Parts: sequence; C-alpha cells; structure tokens
Amino acid sequence: MKILAIDTSNHPMSVALVEDDQLLATTTLNMVRNHSIFLLPVIDDLFQKVQWQPQDLDRVVVAQGPGSYTGIRIAVTTAKVLADTLDIELTGVSSLKTVAANLPSATDALIVPFFDARRGNVFAGVYRWQDDQLVNVLPDQHLSMQALLDQLAKLEKSVLMAGELTDRLQKQLKTVPEQLKFLPAAFSIPSTYQLALLGEKAAPVKNIDAFVPQYLRITEAEAVWHHQHPDAPQQDYVREV
Amino acid sequence: MKILAIDTSNHPMSVALVEDDQLLATTTLNMVRNHSIFLLPVIDDLFQKVQWQPQDLDRVVVAQGPGSYTGIRIAVTTAKVLADTLDIELTGVSSLKTVAANLPSATDALIVPFFDARRGNVFAGVYRWQDDQLVNVLPDQHLSMQALLDQLAKLEKSVLMAGELTDRLQKQLKTVPEQLKFLPAAFSIPSTYQLALLGEKAAPVKNIDAFVPQYLRITEAEAVWHHQHPDAPQQDYVREV
Repeated sequence: MKILAIDTSNHPMSVALVEDDQLLATTTLNMVRNHSIFLLPVIDDLFQKVQWQPQDLDRVVVAQGPGSYTGIRIAVTTAKVLADTLDIELTGVSSLKTVAANLPSATDALIVPFFDARRGNVFAGVYRWQDDQLVNVLPDQHLSMQALLDQLAKLEKSVLMAGELTDRLQKQLKTVPEQLKFLPAAFSIPSTYQLALLGEKAAPVKNIDAFVPQYLRITEAEAVWHHQHPDAPQQDYVREV
Repeated sequence: MKILAIDTSNHPMSVALVEDDQLLATTTLNMVRNHSIFLLPVIDDLFQKVQWQPQDLDRVVVAQGPGSYTGIRIAVTTAKVLADTLDIELTGVSSLKTVAANLPSATDALIVPFFDARRGNVFAGVYRWQDDQLVNVLPDQHLSMQALLDQLAKLEKSVLMAGELTDRLQKQLKTVPEQLKFLPAAFSIPSTYQLALLGEKAAPVKNIDAFVPQYLRITEAEAVWHHQHPDAPQQDYVREV
C-alpha cells in the first residue's frame, strides 16, 4: 500500500511517503509556520525523488488535530482534495497520538503528548502501549496545564511528557508530580513515518466530504459570539457566520 | 550554532539543518542506496528552504561509521570538503550511537543499535543513558549476530535492539535471550536531528585531513590480500594498492 502522510498541526510541517510499512522519503520543516507555502512543493519534491505519480497513491493519512486551527485546516483540506480527486482512501489520526508514537512500545510508562494551546492551556492525551497498539488512557482534551498535571498525579504511574515546553507553559508549572519526566524537544517533532504506520492500520473514512478537523475547542470568534448571544443555540453561530 | 548533519552510513540517507538545538529542516530518503546522486541536491534544497548560505554554517556533523564502506565514504568526504573549504568545524559521531539516540533517556534498558554487515555479521554497540548522555557499555564492534547475543546474555539486563532485522540476520537468530526486544523498523532509521545534537556536544576534530571513516573491519580486498600474503606486515597492503 502506497501512503502519503502529512502533518501540519503545529509548528513542524512533515510529509512522508511510505510503502508497505517501509519509509521511502520524508521531509520535516520547522523554521516558520508557513505550511500553506511549503506543503505542496514538498509533497511534489518527494514524489519526484521516489518517482511516484499522484495516481500511484492508495491512501492519504492526515494528522487530524488537535493543534493550530489554520495548521490543521491546511493538512486536512489538502488530504481531502487529494483523496477526492484521486479517488483513494483517506484516514485521519490524532495529532497527539502521532507524537506519542515517537516512544517505543517497550516503555511501560504512560505517554502524554501535549501542544501549547495558549492562555495556559494545552491539548493533551494520555496514551500507553498495549499489545503493540497505542491506546488512550485518557482521551485527547483541551485543558489547563495545571488540570492536566492534577489528572496525571491521580494516575500514580510513570509519565513521559512529549511536547514543546514553551515559556508560557513553563510558567504554569507550579507543582510537577514526581513521576513526570519531560522528554527532550526532539521527541515532540511528529514523525509522518509513524503517522503513516498508524493510519495504515486504521479504517479509512467513509464520507470524505464529512471529514473535519478535530479542533477540541471552539474558535475565539465563536466563543465571543456565544458570550454576546448567551441564549442562542450552538448552531446559530454557524448560520450567522 | 548552525549545524549541517549528514548520515549516509547505510540504506537511509539523512540530512538535517539545526540551529541552537532547534531542528530547522530535515530530509531522509530510504528508497535506493544512491546517496552519491542525492546527497548534495538534498543539502542544497534544505539550504534554500531555510534561506541559509553555506558560509552561514558553523559546523558539519557526520555519522562516521560503521556501516557500508561506500556509504560512509560519501558522507565523510562531503563533510570534510565542506568543513575544509568553508573553514568551519567538523565533528564525527558513531553511526550506531546516532541510532541509539532514537530511544529516550527515560529508558533504563541497554540500547543496542545494529547494522547488517553481511555473512551473518553485524556492526553493533551497547549503549545506555547516563545523566542524559549516551555512553558505551560495550564499544562499537564487528562480530557475528550469535556472538553479540552471547555477549548480551551475559549482561543480564533488559535490551532494546534497534536495527533492521534483515532475512539474512533473522536466520542467525537461533537462541534469543529472553530480555531482548527487537524494536520496530522505524527506530532503526537514523535521525540527523539527533546526530546534530550529539555532534554539538562533542569536540570538533583538530586535523580535518586526518579524519577518516570508522569502518571497524578491513575491506574484503584487504582481507584477500592478507590471506595471500600471510607474512606481510599490515601496512604493506596500503603501499601495494
């Protein structure tokens, strides 16, 4: 199976071409968040290097979120357009699970990938390896760093934290449970090779049109609108905008 | 510090640009062993993406071996030429240590990166994390897979094996000690981001001209010559050829 895997959920932008579990080519850019400019040229470049045509693809696997609103939309939209126009399979994988897969299944610890969601909040999930599958101990969530630490303290297990500990997040760390270890920044860079492997095992989506990003929170504009229209039902925002 | 890191020791070819511990861009190709064709264009392409000029570099870090003879020579020669002509620092790092760095320092297990060296042999080293440094428990060696397993059995510790378990090597595995776990193939792909981080901490070489690959074995031609000239001293081979 020939897979194109793409992840633009956060600061790094990564693309991989994978065939039958084997990595063929991958590029990760991490200098500026300018994924809309670089994504298609990087995909094109890798196709040229491995001498694939778009028609050769069997499946597109995309990191579906959470992460940056704009970032996720770029990869998800690109993946949907490619899958639809080429008439191939599309699979979405949690952007957090993709980072968790940087850690080997040999570890007994809980794995907690996290992304800075600003305002002292993070996107985070709690994973562990079980029979060579990454499973959720706690689902991907949007919550404050302190609330996450409180939840982890209750689990009473060794925890490997995989994410970029920004200055903003560092300030939120008042009491860090003893069993937590923050991994070096290298383990927070998503591997789209791992993303492809995760997406290869998962079922493809049935309705490509209905496939949407997993934001895990409403946009600021939506939150403001609801604040200004406290009695309006949820769906009115979409209708108004 | 602006670093170019390159690794062509084995089947994967990887290049990374790293600045002050931060990954900026990296490409890994793993489809054919044609590193002499792809290495310079990939370096050039990444320089364009991050908008660096060669003169901006402070250091070249190269995976110095062991691995494929031709492979190591391509990266080492490229690194030496760049360091010499740009008048910048050059640092060599073990190709095995680079693979070991795919595992996080949170692991207590011994880490054994290995490469198929053909004829039932491997290049392998035994590493562990100590105070966030990867240190050798046993040095990088060229030995039979069985001899490696025998050595590991004596260490009586959990061992994570990171390498591509080729069919050839699989056949060598008669008795695998219980405490050994072979990691998925993804962990055998070297990260030149990790290579750059390892090379950033190490001292640069003093004499670039004298910097040579770490083959860890003599070439087949050399072995044949010694077999045909059993009484000749080691250095005679170099003189003759």
